Amino acid sequence: MSSLLSHQMEGHHESLATEGKPIICKAAVLWGPGEPFVIQEVQVDPPQWMEIRVKILFTSICHTDLSAWIGENERQRVFPRILGHEAAGVVESVGEGVEGINAGDHVVPIFNGECGYCKYCKHDKSNHCDKYRVNPLKSTMTIDGKTRFFVAGREDGNLVPVYHFLNTSTFAEYTVLDSACAVKINPMAPLHKMCLFSCGISTGIGAAWNTANVKEDSTLAIYGLGSLGLAVAEGARLRGVSRIIGVDINPEKFAKGQEMGITDFINPKECEKPASEVIKEMTDGGVDYSFECTGNLGVLREAFLSTHDGWGMAIILGIHPSPQMLPLHPMELFDGRKITGTTLGGFKGKAELPEIIEKYMKGEIKINLEGFITHELPFAEINKAFKLLKEGKALRCLLQL
Amino acid sequence: MSSLLSHQMEGHHESLATEGKPIICKAAVLWGPGEPFVIQEVQVDPPQWMEIRVKILFTSICHTDLSAWIGENERQRVFPRILGHEAAGVVESVGEGVEGINAGDHVVPIFNGECGYCKYCKHDKSNHCDKYRVNPLKSTMTIDGKTRFFVAGREDGNLVPVYHFLNTSTFAEYTVLDSACAVKINPMAPLHKMCLFSCGISTGIGAAWNTANVKEDSTLAIYGLGSLGLAVAEGARLRGVSRIIGVDINPEKFAKGQEMGITDFINPKECEKPASEVIKEMTDGGVDYSFECTGNLGVLREAFLSTHDGWGMAIILGIHPSPQMLPLHPMELFDGRKITGTTLGGFKGKAELPEIIEKYMKGEIKINLEGFITHELPFAEINKAFKLLKEGKALRCLLQL
Ligand SMILES: [Zn+2]
Ligand SMILES: [Zn+2]
Ligand SMILES: [Zn+2]
Ligand SMILES: [Zn+2]
Repeated sequence: MSSLLSHQMEGHHESLATEGKPIICKAAVLWGPGEPFVIQEVQVDPPQWMEIRVKILFTSICHTDLSAWIGENERQRVFPRILGHEAAGVVESVGEGVEGINAGDHVVPIFNGECGYCKYCKHDKSNHCDKYRVNPLKSTMTIDGKTRFFVAGREDGNLVPVYHFLNTSTFAEYTVLDSACAVKINPMAPLHKMCLFSCGISTGIGAAWNTANVKEDSTLAIYGLGSLGLAVAEGARLRGVSRIIGVDINPEKFAKGQEMGITDFINPKECEKPASEVIKEMTDGGVDYSFECTGNLGVLREAFLSTHDGWGMAIILGIHPSPQMLPLHPMELFDGRKITGTTLGGFKGKAELPEIIEKYMKGEIKINLEGFITHELPFAEINKAFKLLKEGKALRCLLQL
Repeated sequence: MSSLLSHQMEGHHESLATEGKPIICKAAVLWGPGEPFVIQEVQVDPPQWMEIRVKILFTSICHTDLSAWIGENERQRVFPRILGHEAAGVVESVGEGVEGINAGDHVVPIFNGECGYCKYCKHDKSNHCDKYRVNPLKSTMTIDGKTRFFVAGREDGNLVPVYHFLNTSTFAEYTVLDSACAVKINPMAPLHKMCLFSCGISTGIGAAWNTANVKEDSTLAIYGLGSLGLAVAEGARLRGVSRIIGVDINPEKFAKGQEMGITDFINPKECEKPASEVIKEMTDGGVDYSFECTGNLGVLREAFLSTHDGWGMAIILGIHPSPQMLPLHPMELFDGRKITGTTLGGFKGKAELPEIIEKYMKGEIKINLEGFITHELPFAEINKAFKLLKEGKALRCLLQL
């Protein structure tokens, strides 16, 4: 921890010298779908109106990065681009107009920002900020539609803009964020773990707490036991849920699942009936809540059908790049089952995450963050980290910058 | 009203002579899809364990009857059959085991029954009773899988069973109901209006009150201005909602809609843009709640898209016999819009409707029931009544038996 602290202090000192000037640093630049990331020097311009520039100390990789990397959604293919949206860092400098965040503050970027002023931010049922909500097609800064990253072009070596990703672009030693997309956190919180609050942990725990609002006696089924699914289980465990059914076609994930509070496991490949039928038998008619964390449409239907008719709710967390429509018949909605999606677990990031982190620091919420960090690598080995995630071998591989 | 009262008393007297014996009376029998109803003599057997036999005094026709009449769903085609599920009447006699309902009581049949004991009836989020929920394929009594109706067969004149419909079969002078499917009401309530609580009014008002839980400042869009849509409007008006947008391709429905509290009208045939776009412009981004009352999949999608992203909810009331799936992409659920169905407006019929009717009687809830009864005909003219509904000329045509 002492080397970590000195690392953080170093970030703070630098701000005096670099404020208002471009910074030259390393970033992992993606030049085309599925290509290896190239660690190369980039120019990071100073933050503009309401923006902040952040020295990223840790970043990790989520399936949304994987999906963008292989170019699953054709419309999102803009290159060169800097991906990454789970991270933690220290503010290097702030642009004009920024209030409540200063150089030296510790922050966690959020892809689903919160301006605090729009009708969505003011609505008690929404965390879909008008300006800074999730938009996979957005690739520049909101204020001027330009990038803050530049790099020598591949063909002629002239400076070319490098595009942003999900309001965050954390695969870089320095990044520029709208201040709406940065959550200021307790500076005593361990940044390498806080990284997980950027996306996976918040999404999973929030899906259980906010979207489903699980109770102690709720029954749950989780389809897909990657980080998202396990974070749902973690949220449920923290609420005292005693029956959590995990479904995955990879039985190697069951040991970890058990460690994270999942009580029953189903491997659909070893069942003669669909998983939903097995679950109905196990639970006298179905679970109260199911969570679809795979992005597979067939699994989505199974998740829907595994909920109890009359009151069950299926919650979609997985990303579905296929153009196919929902495999549900309108009349099936009359059986009393509900289906809904969740973004960042329904949390208003800036308003609600700091309190969760405070409670974590005080030991009031014992989130098993360590359990999610299965690998640690230096930033330069980002391609290896992607491979680990793609092959299902890692939950979160922490990259240290 | 005095002739109505003597009619009711007559029903009461008869019970002394008929209890425990079959009754021969008139019913409207359907012998094949789309055929005219045949008013003919049927034998109505005495009520068995937990059943009641009811003298129907008024019945009306709903779109579900229309759909069953023309045989939209092949799997529901069992004949001969007695349709009808909106009605009001007087109990002639009760079978063994029935508690809380006696001969002479005034009742409203409900197609979505409530046994009171199953886990659905005991669950606070469900009105999908395990035994007596909506089941369009059910055509016999629950207790013994037999019919209580018999009629002379068309070919040889021998007695053949006549099948039941939606737990109710109200197109008959006498019908047999499970006691779980009858709501006992205040005997002072005007039966000809109470008829509407069997389905249409309860479904529409409940969709607004229970499923959506509209508030004074909610904005609403209603697609399809038949009885269901207007009942939603009535529910919203009673909650003080001031902005209700009605959408229908038949502008003749607008005058009635205005009378029932709808404030703005859209005829999609006269718009250059989809109705959802027009509604978004009118409401600064969309309505809080939309109600799909047409059973058309394209309209369902429009209803979904006309809700405000971030928090909007689309509620399906229309019957969708088409085998096609929901025209929604999984990712569209991440925009914060919800979609759900509603059955009997989410009311637990026996537990909740009597109180609504009490409040109506006391003038505490001023439901404009008269506004829905656009036509009245003798029972013998049931085929004319179906034609009126099919052509969109009637809201509710009351048939007096
Ligand atoms: Zn993510
Ligand atoms: Zn906002
Ligand atoms: Zn009906
Ligand atoms: Zn029940």
